[in-house]
Amino acid sequence: MFFHVKELQFKAKPDRPNPIFANRLQEVLGGQFGEMTVMMQYLFQGFSCKGPAKYKDMLLDIGTEEIAHVEMLCTMIAHLLEGAPVAAQEQAVGANPMLAAIMGGTNPQHLIVAGAGPLPVNSVGVPWNGAYMVASGDLMADFHANLNGEIQGRLQVARLYNMTDDTGVRDMLAFMIARDTMHQNQWLAAIEELKADGLGAYPVPNTFPTQREDTRVSYQFWNMSQGTESQAGRWAQGRTPDGKGTFEYLANPTPLGPMPEPAKPHPELHNTGGPPSQIK
Amino acid sequence: MFFHVKELQFKAKPDRPNPIFANRLQEVLGGQFGEMTVMMQYLFQGFSCKGPAKYKDMLLDIGTEEIAHVEMLCTMIAHLLEGAPVAAQEQAVGANPMLAAIMGGTNPQHLIVAGAGPLPVNSVGVPWNGAYMVASGDLMADFHANLNGEIQGRLQVARLYNMTDDTGVRDMLAFMIARDTMHQNQWLAAIEELKADGLGAYPVPNTFPTQREDTRVSYQFWNMSQGTESQAGRWAQGRTPDGKGTFEYLANPTPLGPMPEPAKPHPELHNTGGPPSQIK
Amino acid sequence: MFFHVKELQFKAKPDRPNPIFANRLQEVLGGQFGEMTVMMQYLFQGFSCKGPAKYKDMLLDIGTEEIAHVEMLCTMIAHLLEGAPVAAQEQAVGANPMLAAIMGGTNPQHLIVAGAGPLPVNSVGVPWNGAYMVASGDLMADFHANLNGEIQGRLQVARLYNMTDDTGVRDMLAFMIARDTMHQNQWLAAIEELKADGLGAYPVPNTFPTQREDTRVSYQFWNMSQGTESQAGRWAQGRTPDGKGTFEYLANPTPLGPMPEPAKPHPELHNTGGPPSQIK
Amino acid sequence: MFFHVKELQFKAKPDRPNPIFANRLQEVLGGQFGEMTVMMQYLFQGFSCKGPAKYKDMLLDIGTEEIAHVEMLCTMIAHLLEGAPVAAQEQAVGANPMLAAIMGGTNPQHLIVAGAGPLPVNSVGVPWNGAYMVASGDLMADFHANLNGEIQGRLQVARLYNMTDDTGVRDMLAFMIARDTMHQNQWLAAIEELKADGLGAYPVPNTFPTQREDTRVSYQFWNMSQGTESQAGRWAQGRTPDGKGTFEYLANPTPLGPMPEPAKPHPELHNTGGPPSQIK
Amino acid sequence: MFFHVKELQFKAKPDRPNPIFANRLQEVLGGQFGEMTVMMQYLFQGFSCKGPAKYKDMLLDIGTEEIAHVEMLCTMIAHLLEGAPVAAQEQAVGANPMLAAIMGGTNPQHLIVAGAGPLPVNSVGVPWNGAYMVASGDLMADFHANLNGEIQGRLQVARLYNMTDDTGVRDMLAFMIARDTMHQNQWLAAIEELKADGLGAYPVPNTFPTQREDTRVSYQFWNMSQGTESQAGRWAQGRTPDGKGTFEYLANPTPLGPMPEPAKPHPELHNTGGPPSQIK
Amino acid sequence: MFFHVKELQFKAKPDRPNPIFANRLQEVLGGQFGEMTVMMQYLFQGFSCKGPAKYKDMLLDIGTEEIAHVEMLCTMIAHLLEGAPVAAQEQAVGANPMLAAIMGGTNPQHLIVAGAGPLPVNSVGVPWNGAYMVASGDLMADFHANLNGEIQGRLQVARLYNMTDDTGVRDMLAFMIARDTMHQNQWLAAIEELKADGLGAYPVPNTFPTQREDTRVSYQFWNMSQGTESQAGRWAQGRTPDGKGTFEYLANPTPLGPMPEPAKPHPELHNTGGPPSQIK
Repeated sequence: MFFHVKELQFKAKPDRPNPIFANRLQEVLGGQFGEMTVMMQYLFQGFSCKGPAKYKDMLLDIGTEEIAHVEMLCTMIAHLLEGAPVAAQEQAVGANPMLAAIMGGTNPQHLIVAGAGPLPVNSVGVPWNGAYMVASGDLMADFHANLNGEIQGRLQVARLYNMTDDTGVRDMLAFMIARDTMHQNQWLAAIEELKADGLGAYPVPNTFPTQREDTRVSYQFWNMSQGTESQAGRWAQGRTPDGKGTFEYLANPTPLGPMPEPAKPHPELHNTGGPPSQIK
Repeated sequence: MFFHVKELQFKAKPDRPNPIFANRLQEVLGGQFGEMTVMMQYLFQGFSCKGPAKYKDMLLDIGTEEIAHVEMLCTMIAHLLEGAPVAAQEQAVGANPMLAAIMGGTNPQHLIVAGAGPLPVNSVGVPWNGAYMVASGDLMADFHANLNGEIQGRLQVARLYNMTDDTGVRDMLAFMIARDTMHQNQWLAAIEELKADGLGAYPVPNTFPTQREDTRVSYQFWNMSQGTESQAGRWAQGRTPDGKGTFEYLANPTPLGPMPEPAKPHPELHNTGGPPSQIK
Repeated sequence: MFFHVKELQFKAKPDRPNPIFANRLQEVLGGQFGEMTVMMQYLFQGFSCKGPAKYKDMLLDIGTEEIAHVEMLCTMIAHLLEGAPVAAQEQAVGANPMLAAIMGGTNPQHLIVAGAGPLPVNSVGVPWNGAYMVASGDLMADFHANLNGEIQGRLQVARLYNMTDDTGVRDMLAFMIARDTMHQNQWLAAIEELKADGLGAYPVPNTFPTQREDTRVSYQFWNMSQGTESQAGRWAQGRTPDGKGTFEYLANPTPLGPMPEPAKPHPELHNTGGPPSQIK
Repeated sequence: MFFHVKELQFKAKPDRPNPIFANRLQEVLGGQFGEMTVMMQYLFQGFSCKGPAKYKDMLLDIGTEEIAHVEMLCTMIAHLLEGAPVAAQEQAVGANPMLAAIMGGTNPQHLIVAGAGPLPVNSVGVPWNGAYMVASGDLMADFHANLNGEIQGRLQVARLYNMTDDTGVRDMLAFMIARDTMHQNQWLAAIEELKADGLGAYPVPNTFPTQREDTRVSYQFWNMSQGTESQAGRWAQGRTPDGKGTFEYLANPTPLGPMPEPAKPHPELHNTGGPPSQIK
Repeated sequence: MFFHVKELQFKAKPDRPNPIFANRLQEVLGGQFGEMTVMMQYLFQGFSCKGPAKYKDMLLDIGTEEIAHVEMLCTMIAHLLEGAPVAAQEQAVGANPMLAAIMGGTNPQHLIVAGAGPLPVNSVGVPWNGAYMVASGDLMADFHANLNGEIQGRLQVARLYNMTDDTGVRDMLAFMIARDTMHQNQWLAAIEELKADGLGAYPVPNTFPTQREDTRVSYQFWNMSQGTESQAGRWAQGRTPDGKGTFEYLANPTPLGPMPEPAKPHPELHNTGGPPSQIK
Repeated sequence: MFFHVKELQFKAKPDRPNPIFANRLQEVLGGQFGEMTVMMQYLFQGFSCKGPAKYKDMLLDIGTEEIAHVEMLCTMIAHLLEGAPVAAQEQAVGANPMLAAIMGGTNPQHLIVAGAGPLPVNSVGVPWNGAYMVASGDLMADFHANLNGEIQGRLQVARLYNMTDDTGVRDMLAFMIARDTMHQNQWLAAIEELKADGLGAYPVPNTFPTQREDTRVSYQFWNMSQGTESQAGRWAQGRTPDGKGTFEYLANPTPLGPMPEPAKPHPELHNTGGPPSQIK
C-alpha cells in the first residue's frame, strides 16, 4: 500500500513559461524511456519479485521514487504551459516569429485536451503504452533492462538540458541526471550482487543446460558482408566475457540449412499452389 | 545494399505440425524482444553509426544475420501450421480434447488472414511496432540496449524450448540460444572495446559535465518505504561501480521541493478555478 | 440499413483556408472524444441494445446523426486545407513568420498522405482506435459513458472556438456546441428514464447482490496522505448519493492484507529464486 | 512524493492456481477501465488540479489508493499463475480437457514474457495505453469521467465474480466491488460539491457564453430514422435536466446545410480533378 | 446527412450460438480488411472527392452500404454469443472438451467488457484503428486500394465460410461474398472509367512529369539474389503494362551509390564520435 | 540468408541539411506505405510463398531491394538532420522565422531520442507497425496489395518531390519514383502471369464455388442515396470485368433482412433487459 506526502521530491518551477519546451519534456515523462516507463517497470518487477527481500524492497523503493518523478514532471509541464496563447490567430502571427514557433512547436492537445496540463504521451503525442516496460521474472535479465532504461533516460535528459537556458528547468534536469547517475550505479551494483549471491551469470539465463545449446556456434562471429572491418574488434578474438569460450571469426560463413521447401496449404484456405476447394 | 542466398542459416523443419506452438513461437518473431526487433534495431544503429568503421560493420553484420533469423522463424511457423484444422466445427470437437486445445491455443489470424503463414505479430496477436527498438546515436547506450535485447530474447527462447519435445523445433531453438549466447558476449565485448577506445564510460553519457549534475544526490539510495531491507545490498554501501563515488543510504529521506502551487489557467480553457471567459 | 442525403446537417465552409486550424480540428474528428468515437459508440450500443425499443431507436437516431457530424468535419477540414503551401521551401520561409507557423503547425500527412483532405486521426496525428469507445451491454453504464463523451467533447469544441475568428468555422462550432448541449441533456434524461423504468440505479450495476460486497468498506473514504484536506468535502460525510449508506472518513487507514508472499516459480521458467531446470 | 508500506490493502491469495482466470483478471488490471487507468487518471488529475485544496487532496488520496489496487491485482495474478503447466505437449493434452482449456484460455506471454507474473495488458494481451485515461483540467468534466470509469470498472468486476468459485479470489473481488461502490458515490458527491461551490453546472463547461451557441438546436431531438419509437422517452419532451430549456422532437428533420462543394486541390498534390502539375 | 431504416440489409441469425465463431467473425468486422475499414475508407474518400459527381455519389453509396454490413455483423455476433457460458469453472470443464474449447477459443472481452456483444476489434482482440484505411485524394490510387480491400476481404470471408456448418451463418457469409464479388467488379470498372475519362493511367500518378524520373531504372528488374529463377516471369521481359517501356533484367546489379559517409553529430547530442560537449 | 555490400543502391546526400524535410521524409520510410512496409511485406510473402519458384524468387528479389531503400532513406535523413539546432531557445527565435519554422516543423525525437538519426516512424512520429503489411498466402490477392502499395508510395514520393528544391534530395526521389514505376509495372505483369498460369482470376479468390455465393446480388449496384448520379458510371451497366455477369442498378433498394431481434443476455452479465442475477 502507498502513502502520499504533499511536497515534491525536488522543486519543479521554471523561471518562465515555455510551451515548446513543455512539449519536449513530455519525452522523458511519457516516452519509451520516460519516467512512466521506469515507474511501472520497477513496480511490476517489485510486485512479482521472487528473490530475497533485499531485492524486492530495493525495487519497490526505486519504483516508489519514480512515482515522485512523474509528479515533478507533471508539475513542471503545467507551469511551462502557463499563459500559452490560446487565441493564436493568423493576424497575431503576422510579424511574430516567436508566436509562429509556438504554433508549430507545441502539442495542440496540451490546450484542447488537457487544458494546459501534462499528458501521458511522448514528445510527438503518442500515448505511453505497456509494451515499453519489462518485467520478466528473472532479476539478472531485468536489472540489465533497468540499466538500459536509466542509460537511455539519462542520455535524453542530458540532450534536453542544453535545449533550455531556464535555470528552474535546468535545476530540475540536473537533479534528474544525478538520480540517473545513481540509478545506473544501482543496477550495476545489483548485477554484481546477483552474481555474488549465485543468482545470475552470463549468458543469461544461466540455468539453461549448456549441452542443450548448439555449441558449435556459441562463440562464432559471422561476417555477413563483403570486407572484414568487423574483425578488428574485441568481439572477434580472445576469451569471451562469460569466461566460457573463445571468439572465432567466420570471414566467409555459409548457410547451415537447406533451401526451404514450401509448407502444404489446405484447400479451403484458397492459397496459391494449394489443391482445389472441397466444398461443392 | 543487400543480397539474398537461397539457403537458410539453419534448418527450420519441425517433426510434425503444431499450430499451438506456431502461435507461441510468434513471440520471438514479432514480440517486444523478437527477431524483428533486433533486426531493425541493429540495422538502424548500423545505418546511423558515426563511430569507427569496425563498429558500423559489426552492427550491420549482425543486423544482416538477424534478417536470416526472421527468415528461419517464418519458415518454421509455416511448417508448424501445415494441416491446421480449417473446418473445426462443434461436432468435431465433441470428444476431442486435442482439437479443443487447438481451437483455443491458436491464433485465428494464422488461418483467416495469413492462409497458414507467419504474421508480424507477437504470441497474443499484437502487431510488431517501431517503439520496440532503440537507436540513439550513442553506441555505449545502444550496446546496453542490445545486450538487454539478447538477454530477454535468450530467456524467452529458453522458456519455449521446454514447451515442446519436437526435435526439429528444439534443434532450431538450440541454434538460436547459441547465437544469443554469442550475441550477449558480443555486446559485452563491444562495451569493453568502447571503453578501451575512450568512447564510453559510466555514467552514460560520460560527456555530460559532472559539475552540472546535482551531485548532492548522485550516489544516494532513497529508502521510500517503512523498513530497511534494501540497505542490505551492494547498492547501499561501498564504492560505486562507475568508480567516482560512494553509495550513501538515506533511511528516512525527506522531500527537497516545496508543496507545488497550481499553474494559472487561461480563461478560454474553461478550467476549474480559472477566471471567467472573455468571449461575449 | 442506412441511406444518405446529399446535403450537410449544417454548413461547413470557412471564410478562408487555415491549415493550422485544420490540424487542430482533427482532435474533435478523430481524437479520444471526437465524432468518430461517439458515432461508433452510439451505433454499437444501438446495434447491441437489449432494452425497450425507445432506447434502441434513440441510440441509433443519435448514432446516425453523428455520421453526419463526421461528414461536416471532413468537409470543413478539406476547405481549411485548400491552398496549403505545398512548395514551402527554406527560401520562402526566410522572412515570413506566417509561413513558418504553417510549416510547423500543420500535419505533414494532410498533404503527403491525404492530398489536402481529412484524416482519421487526432490533432497530433495518432490514428483513431476502437479502444476509445464503450459499449458494455448495460445501458445505465453506457449512458454515463455517453454523458462523459459529450462533456469532454463540448469542452474541447469550446476551447477550439476561441482559437479562431473565422466566422464560418465559428458558426459550425456553435452548432456543434449546441448539439452537445442537447446531447448532455439527452443522456441525463435517459439516465432518469432508466431509473423511472426500474432499469438502473446506483451503484451500477444494481443487480449485483449487496450481501456479496465487502460492505465494511463500501462507504469509507481512505485518507492516503498526510494532512486531511480531503475531509472537507461532501464525499467524506453525510448520506451517500446512492441513498444506501453514510460516508465515513478514515483519517489513518491501515492495510487489511498481509505482507504478500512470493509466488512459486516453475523451474523451466528460469526465474530468479526458482528451482534448477529439470532438462538435462 | 510517495511512500510504500509492505502490506497489501487487502489480501490477494486464491485458494488454488488458475491460469485461465489470471488471464481474465488482466482486464481489470490493464484494460480500458482497469486499475492502471484509474490510478494514472486520478494521479494526473491531482497533479494538475487548479481548484481548492480539498479537491486536489481527494484526487491524490484516491489515486494513491489505486496504486495499491494495482499491487493487489499483480499479487493475485502471480498466485493464480503458480504451477501453470510449462511443458504442455500434445501427448499430455491427449485425453485431458482441462489441460486443453489451459492451453487455449491462457495468455502465452504470462509464461514466455513474464515468467508467470502479471503483465500491463488487458485480457486479450493488448498493452495498456495512455489514451485510456482522461485529465482535462475541468473538474466537472473529469469527475464525470471518473464516475464513468468506476461504473464500467464495477460492472466488469461483477461479471468476473461469477466466473470463479475460488473464495480467495471472490473475497478480493468483493472488496474491489465495495470500493467501486464507494468511488461511484464519491464522484457523485464530488459533482454535487462542485455545483454547491459554484464550480460546475450543466451543460459542461458552463463558462461558455450561451449566446454564442446555436441555440436553435440546443434542445432538439433529431429523429434520424423511419418510425418514432424514440419519441417515447424523457429526452423528447418536458424540461431539460440543465433547467434551461424544453425538449423538442423533430420527427422529420431536414438538413440545414447545402450540398457540399469540393475543395480545390493544389496541382502538385496529383489529386483527381486538380489542375496539371507545374513542374517541368 | 444520413437516415436509418430498421431492417437489416440481410438476415443475421445463426442456427445456434457459437462463441468461438463469434470471435473469428470479428476479423471481418474490426480487422485490417474488415467492414469497419471499408466503411470508413469509402466514406472518407466520398467526403473528400474532388472528381465528377458520379464518383462521389458512387463512393458514398457503397460507403453507406458498408455501414449496414457493420450492422449485420454486429447483430450476428451478438446472437452467436447468446448463452456463452459465464460460469465456466474448472470443475465444469473437467470432462468436457467442448467447454474447454470455448474457454480457449473465445475472446474474454466479449463477456467482461461487452456483455456478450460485438467489439470494434479483430479476431485476436486488437482494436480497429484509422491506419487501416486509405483516402489519398487521388481516385486512381484509391480505387486500387479499394480493390485490394475487397480482395482481401472476400478471401477472408471465403476462409471463414468453411469453418462453420451453421446454415444461418453461411447464408450471411454467402451474401457477403456475393457483395464482395460485386465490389471487386465495381472497382475494376471504376478504374476503367477513370482511364476512359482521362483521369488516370499507369504509372500512378500519371501527372508526375516523366523527364523528372530517373528513367534509367524505370523498367529494370534487379536480381538481388544468387540464381535467376525470377527471370522466368512476365515482369522480366517484353513491353511493360503501362505501355511506355520494355522490361530489362539485370542479372548482376551493382550499387549506384557510394559507400555512405557518416553524418556529423552535434556536441550536445552526446553521440559516439561527436566532438566534446561545449557546456561547462 | 542475406549478405550486405557496403555501397548504397543510390546516392543519398542532400545539398544541405534540412531538418523539416527530414521529418517529412519519414513518411516514406516508416509510414503506412513507406519502405519498411514494402520491405516486410515482400519478405514475408516471399518466405511464405507456396507457388512456383519464379514467384518466390521475384518476391525475395524485390524484398531484398527494399532493404536497400530503407538504408538509403536512413542515410539521407541523417544527413538532413546534420546541424539541426540543439540549443534553440526563445531568445534565438526572437527575430528568426526560419528558426521558428524549424522548432515547429521538426520531430523533437529526432534530437532527443535518436541523436539526429532516422526513426522507425512516420511524418507525425507514429511508430511503424505490423498491421500496415499484408501477406495472405494468396498471390493474386497479395499482388494487388503490392500494386496498391507501390501506387500510394509513388504518389507520396511525387508529392514530396515538389516540397524541396534540394537537388541531392530530388535525385534520390527521382530514383525512388522510377523504381516505383518499375514496381507498379512488375505487379501488373505478375497479375497477368498468374492469370496466364491459371493461378488467379477475378473475383479473387476464384476457387470459392460460385454456386455457394448468393448470386442474386453478385452484380447489383445498390443506390443508397437520394438521386442517381452513381448510375452514370461503368459500374452500373454492361458486362462485369470478371466476364461472368452484367451490372444491374437498383435505384431503390429495400432491405432483405427483417428487423433484428435482440440477443438474450445471461443474468450474470448484468445487462439491461436481462433476467435477475442468480447469485445469492
